[in-house]
Amino acid sequence: MAKVLSGAGLRGQVAGKTALSTVGKTGSGLTYRGYDIKDLATHCQFEEVAYLVLKGKLPNQSELDAYKTKLKSLRGLPQALKDVLERIPADAHPMDVMRTGCSMLGNLETEKDFSEQDDVSDRMLACFPSIICYWYRFSHDGVRINVETDDDSIGAHFLNLLHGKKPRELFEQVMHISLILYAEHEFNASTFTARVCASTLSDMHSCITGAIGSLRGPLHGGANEAAMELIEQFDNPDHAEREMLGKLERKEKIMGFGHAIYSESDPRNDIIKKWSEKLAKEVGDKVLYPVSVRCEEVMWREKKLFCNADFFHASAYHFMGIPTKLFTPIFVMSRLTGWAAHVMEQRADNRIIRPSAEYVGEEPRKVQPIAERD
Amino acid sequence: MAKVLSGAGLRGQVAGKTALSTVGKTGSGLTYRGYDIKDLATHCQFEEVAYLVLKGKLPNQSELDAYKTKLKSLRGLPQALKDVLERIPADAHPMDVMRTGCSMLGNLETEKDFSEQDDVSDRMLACFPSIICYWYRFSHDGVRINVETDDDSIGAHFLNLLHGKKPRELFEQVMHISLILYAEHEFNASTFTARVCASTLSDMHSCITGAIGSLRGPLHGGANEAAMELIEQFDNPDHAEREMLGKLERKEKIMGFGHAIYSESDPRNDIIKKWSEKLAKEVGDKVLYPVSVRCEEVMWREKKLFCNADFFHASAYHFMGIPTKLFTPIFVMSRLTGWAAHVMEQRADNRIIRPSAEYVGEEPRKVQPIAERD
Repeated sequence: MAKVLSGAGLRGQVAGKTALSTVGKTGSGLTYRGYDIKDLATHCQFEEVAYLVLKGKLPNQSELDAYKTKLKSLRGLPQALKDVLERIPADAHPMDVMRTGCSMLGNLETEKDFSEQDDVSDRMLACFPSIICYWYRFSHDGVRINVETDDDSIGAHFLNLLHGKKPRELFEQVMHISLILYAEHEFNASTFTARVCASTLSDMHSCITGAIGSLRGPLHGGANEAAMELIEQFDNPDHAEREMLGKLERKEKIMGFGHAIYSESDPRNDIIKKWSEKLAKEVGDKVLYPVSVRCEEVMWREKKLFCNADFFHASAYHFMGIPTKLFTPIFVMSRLTGWAAHVMEQRADNRIIRPSAEYVGEEPRKVQPIAERD
Repeated sequence: MAKVLSGAGLRGQVAGKTALSTVGKTGSGLTYRGYDIKDLATHCQFEEVAYLVLKGKLPNQSELDAYKTKLKSLRGLPQALKDVLERIPADAHPMDVMRTGCSMLGNLETEKDFSEQDDVSDRMLACFPSIICYWYRFSHDGVRINVETDDDSIGAHFLNLLHGKKPRELFEQVMHISLILYAEHEFNASTFTARVCASTLSDMHSCITGAIGSLRGPLHGGANEAAMELIEQFDNPDHAEREMLGKLERKEKIMGFGHAIYSESDPRNDIIKKWSEKLAKEVGDKVLYPVSVRCEEVMWREKKLFCNADFFHASAYHFMGIPTKLFTPIFVMSRLTGWAAHVMEQRADNRIIRPSAEYVGEEPRKVQPIAERD
């Protein structure tokens, strides 16, 4: 007899085990393999955290050096993949581009055996910035960029490809922070998608392709883009306050606030907010950062709603010159680490994920001859 | 407080509601919207069943005619999609081709609004045979086929593209049966993947792309191919019996038998077995069908394991001249109807699917300076 759940969406139901993260449990509220997110964001580069998530430990210096060297060597794209990206129009959804790029890569560099899972994941980590930027620059600027640069980090590689020049030091630093903050978040919908796919023992590219498709949904990955669309409407803090009060009055949905699991604050907000402030100073912003702060104040005062990880990411990305529509693909470049680690975890102790359904349809009935149907 | 489940893989846990099918409950054990699978397979063409699953009722004659006319008009592929398919090598996994073809289509014909969901689904239903056959014929035979034929049904369209000639009447009939049998099966792993993706309010192409990736897994969609690889090893029934006994003795995994939900028989087996027998007579087979029957006898006698839907599909497809590696893509052409209908159902009463996890990882710990790490 199937158990009927109290809520929809499997909320509060345990769907499996993980050693990768805790959300809303200890420390500041988010840990990766036991390390608090604030500690990681203070002391680590993104590549250290990716190594932690994917391989189970923080690397020592020689492991980190070797890992970064490996990732640097994997930035190139096969010609067939470039050909595919060149055929995707400029007005395509960038998440559709990521999904298709990942899927195409799976045709060209198929994971033949699970013993290849580490290499396949590292390859994706190294070349996802190449995929999105190659398409973006070709479709928007008409140039075929060289994606094999010698940038020191994944974040710097992305910014260099996007802007055609090495990023400022502060920008590279903020990319490390941002990619760390988004790397892993337990059984969110995209990660759960990857695990369901993995439970059929499908290949890594299928799992990641599926996860990208889920992250694309506006209830999941698109909140930082929506936050940007919100704040860029306002000329100054007072204007923001008036408009926000109006939106609340009209009960409009406001993205970037609150969270399905966190109830009092999102530990990632404190961190990215500080870096957004630094960036505002660096680029001489007098509008977007103060507007963002006022939005935060209004939402807390009026609704006791706190900013989640996405809200100050909007201004931070904008200050670094990143087009709004590429915000969610950055999320992919980072969360890929969590997805791949969850796939590996699922494979290591697998049972196919096949829940039951409550039937609410028609009673048994006979097929009528077609001539007698309504 | 999260509820801890009795079993892994969400087995027996209700993850949502559906009006689309019942599995192992009434009639012969499988119903689509209240109609028994045997009744549907006896009286309907696949397009009628696709209409039933997707639109909620069996069509009358004029509705069916209009639907078939619509589907026929949607068989063509955009040039950019053909270009992509031409860049996928002949040794790629055909399910990777389907996944990439579907994903690329999403870039070219994006679902902008859920009001387009019917048209987007019909389009996929009409052009998936074109996608797989265009790639197959180009990569294997070096020809660029014209995919816009005037075949009366989806099954005939597929066989015509594959073989370059109109199929025999019996073959077209069996394709109807086969596509009906595979069309829908409640919350199996690929369908559940589609629903998790849909719960983020992502687009239809993302949901279907993800589902294809899950169906690719050997625990899910690949069983008919594995059954073919099994039976083609045997020269005659006695040889099959000896080898099967040896496999059982050595506890080797044998695909095509038993089922996660059905406990005594798979209602689809009776149906496809009869048609496989008819096909054997039609093509003059003296080996594969009798070998299949003997395998069934041995598995039942020795292990009380029954054939599932996949086992006699292997011989049936083989008799129609379908290469083994295209068996699972046919499953996609059919199950697409169930996937798309589940996406629509999820959208109509949605809450994001976000379960919890049981944490089994490290206790809270401090980040050590990199110089001090092991």
